[in-house]
Amino acid sequence: MDGDARACFEQLEMDWFPAREWLKGYSQPTFTADLIAAVIVTIMLIPQSLAYAMLAGVPPEVGLYASVLPLVAYALFGTSRTLSVGPVAVVSLMTATSVGSAVASTGADYQHAAIILALLSGLFLVAMGLLRFGFLANFLSHPVVSGFISASGIIIALSQVRHILGISAHGETLPTIAQTLFAHLGDTNLPTVGVGLFALVFLFWCRTKLAGVLIGVGLSRDLASTLTKTAPVLAIVLTIAVTVVFDLENQGVAIVGAIPSGLPSLSLPSIAWPLVKELLPAAVLISIIGYVESISVGRTLGAKRRQRVQADQELIGLGAANLASGLSSGFPVTGGFSRSVVNFDAGAQTPAASIMTALGIALAALFLTPVLYFLPKATLAATIIVAVLSLVDLGLVKRAWIYSRRDAVALLGTIMITLLAGVELGVVTGVGLSIFLHLYHTSKPHTAIVGEVPGTQHFRNVNRHQVVTDPAICSLRIDESLYFPNASYLEDVVYAVIAKNPEVKHVILMCSAVNVIDMSALEALEMINQRLKELGVKLHLSEVKGPVMDGLKKSHFLDELTGHIYLSQHDAFTQLRAQVAAG
Amino acid sequence: MDGDARACFEQLEMDWFPAREWLKGYSQPTFTADLIAAVIVTIMLIPQSLAYAMLAGVPPEVGLYASVLPLVAYALFGTSRTLSVGPVAVVSLMTATSVGSAVASTGADYQHAAIILALLSGLFLVAMGLLRFGFLANFLSHPVVSGFISASGIIIALSQVRHILGISAHGETLPTIAQTLFAHLGDTNLPTVGVGLFALVFLFWCRTKLAGVLIGVGLSRDLASTLTKTAPVLAIVLTIAVTVVFDLENQGVAIVGAIPSGLPSLSLPSIAWPLVKELLPAAVLISIIGYVESISVGRTLGAKRRQRVQADQELIGLGAANLASGLSSGFPVTGGFSRSVVNFDAGAQTPAASIMTALGIALAALFLTPVLYFLPKATLAATIIVAVLSLVDLGLVKRAWIYSRRDAVALLGTIMITLLAGVELGVVTGVGLSIFLHLYHTSKPHTAIVGEVPGTQHFRNVNRHQVVTDPAICSLRIDESLYFPNASYLEDVVYAVIAKNPEVKHVILMCSAVNVIDMSALEALEMINQRLKELGVKLHLSEVKGPVMDGLKKSHFLDELTGHIYLSQHDAFTQLRAQVAAG
Repeated sequence: MDGDARACFEQLEMDWFPAREWLKGYSQPTFTADLIAAVIVTIMLIPQSLAYAMLAGVPPEVGLYASVLPLVAYALFGTSRTLSVGPVAVVSLMTATSVGSAVASTGADYQHAAIILALLSGLFLVAMGLLRFGFLANFLSHPVVSGFISASGIIIALSQVRHILGISAHGETLPTIAQTLFAHLGDTNLPTVGVGLFALVFLFWCRTKLAGVLIGVGLSRDLASTLTKTAPVLAIVLTIAVTVVFDLENQGVAIVGAIPSGLPSLSLPSIAWPLVKELLPAAVLISIIGYVESISVGRTLGAKRRQRVQADQELIGLGAANLASGLSSGFPVTGGFSRSVVNFDAGAQTPAASIMTALGIALAALFLTPVLYFLPKATLAATIIVAVLSLVDLGLVKRAWIYSRRDAVALLGTIMITLLAGVELGVVTGVGLSIFLHLYHTSKPHTAIVGEVPGTQHFRNVNRHQVVTDPAICSLRIDESLYFPNASYLEDVVYAVIAKNPEVKHVILMCSAVNVIDMSALEALEMINQRLKELGVKLHLSEVKGPVMDGLKKSHFLDELTGHIYLSQHDAFTQLRAQVAAG
Repeated sequence: MDGDARACFEQLEMDWFPAREWLKGYSQPTFTADLIAAVIVTIMLIPQSLAYAMLAGVPPEVGLYASVLPLVAYALFGTSRTLSVGPVAVVSLMTATSVGSAVASTGADYQHAAIILALLSGLFLVAMGLLRFGFLANFLSHPVVSGFISASGIIIALSQVRHILGISAHGETLPTIAQTLFAHLGDTNLPTVGVGLFALVFLFWCRTKLAGVLIGVGLSRDLASTLTKTAPVLAIVLTIAVTVVFDLENQGVAIVGAIPSGLPSLSLPSIAWPLVKELLPAAVLISIIGYVESISVGRTLGAKRRQRVQADQELIGLGAANLASGLSSGFPVTGGFSRSVVNFDAGAQTPAASIMTALGIALAALFLTPVLYFLPKATLAATIIVAVLSLVDLGLVKRAWIYSRRDAVALLGTIMITLLAGVELGVVTGVGLSIFLHLYHTSKPHTAIVGEVPGTQHFRNVNRHQVVTDPAICSLRIDESLYFPNASYLEDVVYAVIAKNPEVKHVILMCSAVNVIDMSALEALEMINQRLKELGVKLHLSEVKGPVMDGLKKSHFLDELTGHIYLSQHDAFTQLRAQVAAG
């Protein structure tokens, strides 16, 4: 068995063209499996593309454009076998927010700005991947991501209520949206409410009950679950029919209207520096959020089939997808949760399924758009509301509160700031808060006086276990790396212990939990050593880890240390006890 | 002996009026000792006050004002017995920088802005103290503080060269100062250079050689060292004499000129919001830097006499000093290194010494200012240069590089940014860099496969020690708290180890170095447990600390865990080994 586990990672080298692996040995049965999955995902993706285009504020066809080439690009450069890339709710909301404010301040064209945002996001992701900065995504903790997605879900759902009521409203935070909704409540269009509520109830029913009904009539669990995911298409067909039959367009029901059919042309848009400057911070934030969302889906699915997702190459894959989106008049995309799960459950074996899905969407863009003319916007809004409300998990606040106050505070902070001050400030606050709370915790680390558990060589906290101690020996375990935020606290702890126990002649710092001693802490240790020396107390260390010891050997500390460094706490305690008894 | 050492800290409660402690029992011998120290510090403080006022860009008398009431305020509210508060080099430089730019952008009066800065700084420090935010200062690591002070020292010294040459120059960074110096080099005034070089050489000689000479003629080491510190007064006397005798004023030597004599009136200046807004960020930064400088001096001196400095009360003490400075027309102050050492060495016993020093400076402001009329500015510049160059410690870069690359990078980053982009950006970069480097390190923690050291119950890295292992048992020690930055890395490590060692049936995570398991890491552990279960491998934990175990008990993880939690790694290894052998 080999040692430092890190060495095992050499096998996880980045592969610049991961598609090579699945392309070789691609077979007929795999093709069939991929094709079936592609058909199901295509049916699901059409309404999603239209809805998220509406959420992002771009014309519906742009949603379709963003679901063609980006899928192909990710299939070639991404590492997840089953991730389905395209427009998703949170990224679309962030697109609307940032493009809206950039357009207001620069006067640029809205759709053009969305394209630039996709390109910037793609460039940033590729650059992050080339620099192997995938680890940065780890700084978004689980509670921060969950809180952010829940709060975004609430904002997105509320922002769609206007389409259900057929009124106008705007804003990017809970209070502003609620306020403008109330202001226009008098304009509510009843036929629109009828269509919207029908779609909402129908979709909720499908989501919660349909699978049970289908299983009841004898379908397999998998098939029932997959069919359930195509409910939005059914809602679209039904509400288009109702709109046409009852001529709802002339009764004030907003419809999608004419969607230009055809495929996007490939072009590099003109790039103006002021617009780029305005969009860049948002592009960075959207990229990171999109990446974190996507890689967590990819990892979850990968784990089920023992397939690994390579963090840095994923950046390249998602970057390529966004570049492809920008070059084909699309908007920012990332890996989506629900459609990736459908792709996986429907049996997709390789990214070829995504390429076939792209083909399906391309066909829809060519031939299906006339059919969508009478599609009520309220139906799309209902699709969005039902999809995003399933992302909201406020129960996590309670679970976090029980498990860890720090996580709960970071989670609550992220939710509150996202709701009240918008998505961008929300996620930045969340990251800052979780880092600060961790650093604060490490600045006043847990410390324990330890003694030997009788009959073993194991040392534990004297307050939690029945242990053996010696009045002349103080064994102090510091449960944290020793580094600048806690360097002076370390001094305080040692001096306080000595002040309370004047009979102590030996202090042993048990370093099993000390993973780093930085220069600030080294200075503190030198001060402690010096001061204990003046008091006639010797300072010893035990269980110093290899890498920490390597560092200490390069300093003068070991020359000045009044005591010794022991391999184990047991050695230290036994030898010093004998010394005390003899002396 | 008691347990959690943190409990010992109850004795360190804040005392809102720490002077009470030394005022009771104040005696005749203490008074005599304090008086002697006060006389020596007063002699030293007069040139320092004038010089640092010049550095801060305010009239010389303001330096004296800032050395009267602030000393009294600190004596009453501070906790160090021997700290000497007043104008110091780095804070004066930061004052010049921030007041200069605020005056340029708001058109406010320079001296007025300096007073507002002192008040803001005082309010901020008091607020920090009341909120008990003293721990924030710990986030300035030792290398960052040292690097910042060294770089500031270089900037300060270079900024004073113009006074030595008698030319004009300005700027706040190394390149700008050097550039304007070169541009005006042709205007060099030779008599000024003569006075300046004389003062420089004299002061350097006194600092390096005088003590030796004095000891040679029979003085005690302490007395010699203290007399050496009064060299600036001698330089002042000598250069005033030269200036008067040779009528240097009319040969272009810049002199201090008329200093209004008298004491400052106490008044609350008018406060304009735009100026406050402009100065606030600088006030925060100056406060924190001044606090860190001051408390490190206070702690160093306190340690020598076993006197403790209370971090949060120190904020109140320094805040009171700055408020007193602002109310008496002064500028920002803090505890100074060299004069505190002199105060300490001269035998000051209580803060009464500082109150008597304040009295001495008040007398100087009343009666001494006419004498200072002919004082050449070049002499003050020489005083500053000699004082700040002793703060420059570039050797630390090499020592840091040898001991810890992370510390060295933070140090170099702080020095470079301070020199090239100014003091404010320098210190912010330093703090950000040191936090980032630490977090980055913890995001890819050191891990080790461990085995039992023969004949002991102690487990160490298989790569560093001769140890006993078992092919069916993998004991993995993670040398870091498990939290969001490394949660997914933890998964990667475990999966990689399992992939390389297919014969493993039990994975023991040895948690002796795990001080926290947050929600993100808990989720990762649940994933690992689930995935190992699918592979028929059991997951165990050992040496889980009390506080971490308390958290795990509140989660569902323990119900789902396929293996056990063992008190010690020895128990885990022994029992599982028996199990493997039996099964």
